[in-house]
Amino acid sequence: MQFELTKQYLADLRKAIEGGNTTFLSQEMEKLHEVDIADILDELNMSEAKFLFSFIEEEKAADVMVELEDDVREKFLAALSSKEIADQVIDNIESDDAADVIAELPDKIKEEVISQIEDPEQASDIVDLLNYEEGTAGGLMAKELIAVNQNWTVMKCLREMRIQAEQMEDVYAVYVVNNNNALLGLLSLNKMLVAPTNSIIDDIFDKEVTSVHTDTSSEEVANIMDKYDLVVLPVVDEDGKLQGRITIDDVVEIIKEEAEKDYQMASGITEDVESSDKVWILSRARLPWLLIGLIGGIFGAKVIGLYEHDIKIYPEMAFFIPLIAAMGGNVGVQSSAIIVQGLANNTLGMESIFTKLVKELGVALINGIICSVLILGYNLFFSDSMALSMTVSVALLSVIIIAGLFGTLVPLLLNKYDIDAALATGPFITTINDILGLAVYFLIGRLMYLYF
Amino acid sequence: MQFELTKQYLADLRKAIEGGNTTFLSQEMEKLHEVDIADILDELNMSEAKFLFSFIEEEKAADVMVELEDDVREKFLAALSSKEIADQVIDNIESDDAADVIAELPDKIKEEVISQIEDPEQASDIVDLLNYEEGTAGGLMAKELIAVNQNWTVMKCLREMRIQAEQMEDVYAVYVVNNNNALLGLLSLNKMLVAPTNSIIDDIFDKEVTSVHTDTSSEEVANIMDKYDLVVLPVVDEDGKLQGRITIDDVVEIIKEEAEKDYQMASGITEDVESSDKVWILSRARLPWLLIGLIGGIFGAKVIGLYEHDIKIYPEMAFFIPLIAAMGGNVGVQSSAIIVQGLANNTLGMESIFTKLVKELGVALINGIICSVLILGYNLFFSDSMALSMTVSVALLSVIIIAGLFGTLVPLLLNKYDIDAALATGPFITTINDILGLAVYFLIGRLMYLYF
Repeated sequence: MQFELTKQYLADLRKAIEGGNTTFLSQEMEKLHEVDIADILDELNMSEAKFLFSFIEEEKAADVMVELEDDVREKFLAALSSKEIADQVIDNIESDDAADVIAELPDKIKEEVISQIEDPEQASDIVDLLNYEEGTAGGLMAKELIAVNQNWTVMKCLREMRIQAEQMEDVYAVYVVNNNNALLGLLSLNKMLVAPTNSIIDDIFDKEVTSVHTDTSSEEVANIMDKYDLVVLPVVDEDGKLQGRITIDDVVEIIKEEAEKDYQMASGITEDVESSDKVWILSRARLPWLLIGLIGGIFGAKVIGLYEHDIKIYPEMAFFIPLIAAMGGNVGVQSSAIIVQGLANNTLGMESIFTKLVKELGVALINGIICSVLILGYNLFFSDSMALSMTVSVALLSVIIIAGLFGTLVPLLLNKYDIDAALATGPFITTINDILGLAVYFLIGRLMYLYF
Repeated sequence: MQFELTKQYLADLRKAIEGGNTTFLSQEMEKLHEVDIADILDELNMSEAKFLFSFIEEEKAADVMVELEDDVREKFLAALSSKEIADQVIDNIESDDAADVIAELPDKIKEEVISQIEDPEQASDIVDLLNYEEGTAGGLMAKELIAVNQNWTVMKCLREMRIQAEQMEDVYAVYVVNNNNALLGLLSLNKMLVAPTNSIIDDIFDKEVTSVHTDTSSEEVANIMDKYDLVVLPVVDEDGKLQGRITIDDVVEIIKEEAEKDYQMASGITEDVESSDKVWILSRARLPWLLIGLIGGIFGAKVIGLYEHDIKIYPEMAFFIPLIAAMGGNVGVQSSAIIVQGLANNTLGMESIFTKLVKELGVALINGIICSVLILGYNLFFSDSMALSMTVSVALLSVIIIAGLFGTLVPLLLNKYDIDAALATGPFITTINDILGLAVYFLIGRLMYLYF
């Protein structure tokens, strides 16, 4: 039922392009969804892509353009004149996409394209949208919406809505405004369908409406839409005047990016990269964590170096270095990941930092004791050094507790000082936990060998 | 503008509950959004919560019930008779939520509640929904939708829609069906507003409609809605008959959960837990990785144990054990995280496994050489053993390459055999990379000390 882009299909298309099988190409371009066409164009080389593009009907072609990857779109746009961009692309897409497309153009072309837009209202909407910063509600919103005056009748509403609706693809909500265009509430479509046509809007609209300011951050927009299950969210300026609306599809991307950012940070990747990016971009995104790991490793070597003499006498102390270091890192990552996710989802609840630490102490004690007893059993059975057996178990328990408390405390503190708590799940803390773990291990080792 | 639940506000509410300040309580319950009220009730103790609940108007109270945490809702429902559940809760919420609420009830009560539902159509809708498995489109969908016949006029449509709309909260789409209730397409609201009232639907509706089957998995539903930017998605049975619709707000949760699942797996947490869960649940979710880490540590100890004699002579070999182990783990996690995210987002593109490995080799060589040269510089300067300096650098480069290739290959292979690739970012691979890294390090060490 769903289209899936396969190698076979791409090969078929290429053959049709080469052989000039125009019937097949037009058929396919008519049948496929614009998102799938964009995926195909992203895979083809530029001359194939341009040839195929010519078979797409104009309105759909504009939608395809919006869905292309940035660098492919850039090449397509470079081949068009400013007038063509204005007439064939901008005129056929919604204002938020239009502003995004224009924002990517070189400054000179930008102005040319805007001056070529025929509808002055559309041009001024786009200029308006270009003024908002990226990452704000203003930068996310579109201008297309249906607004009705509180004093209108349902009949007048329907008439006005017909006019406004002609310029829109989808109608998600009808906003009610006063004479100053200030947002008052929502008119649900079913209320309007059910009410007598001479009812006044003021008597039937819903005054409870959630809105955001043009300068609300996109993360907050995403949180609000997610929390209140909103499909569309109106945006107002500082005077409460209705400026635009944000639909959920644009916000789903932000929600996903937020979740992925935390994941990438936890995996030691510092930029938003994809496996299809160039080798040097991937390398650059990954090198910072490796360098921190390297510095951590050097400090680790320094810590162990302090005990060089002990290792010469008791080389078995070295055996469990990886175990202690790894367990410290693991526990630290676990406990901070739980806090970071709780912060991202607002599910941390009302517990104080102290309560959280006590709780983490409980978790660390349970898991620490289980692990320590298991490794003690193993060592008592397979190792002939009582001192080593005791050292590993006591050090393991201590490391699990320290790393757990540390992993809980650091993201909470970072968050308190408005620093991204996800930093705590990344390189920095893992490395510190490694080093702390080694210090504890060798210190306990020296004490144990003195007494056993 | 947005409500934020603070300790101060909770304290004020508690005081009002204790003091019986009913005016304040009713006012607040009327003002607040049902999601925020649910958050408040989740924080109060049961007798406070029940008292506060009594100030919420019935229809809103039902919505609050849907938003409560599972265990809190369970307690609320336990205090109601089956008739009260049917009349006060089920009758006031949409069919998908109603089915979810009923599914949580004990079997006996479940049947009682269903038999108490007054509207037979509503009862049969809910029974129908209860039959679909969780995690499928059928389990996600709601029955409330507006469907019009292809042979109707716009006028008849508007009349029928009024009747259907009365039972619905929001209208997102109007579906067009034939006499057998098979889904044919969509009628956009603006087309209907613009068309003359005597037009036949068949002439104005849009035949391009994306739909899913009742047994499509929720992950695929989420992918489709995300990919095609859909706000609502119709669900059909195997005969193409319209069965229900899924709205994006239910799917946002799935998209988030998918992203979070990968993150939790990468952080070594095996269940979906929150920081507010009980200590033993948190311990249980975290113990498996620790046990795998423990076993890995024991194998690591075995590998190092093979070189006990070397360590006695060259104890400095032990210094860099954490560095080698950590770097192997880090590189492995990075490379597999990029693959796992690519799989989740369908952005891996058309490259073959071989191409990906060659690319990863490039990344590993760049980052490996940079790290190896840095650590060589450090060691040449601060260490007096040429053999150690060479060992650490050569081993580090080898480990980065091996871990990078391994971290790329394993998730791709897991995915090929339909196993969740996110496993590869978790405990198993990190641990294997640690052990492999140690083996390489000591092997190279022995060779180096022979020749330098």
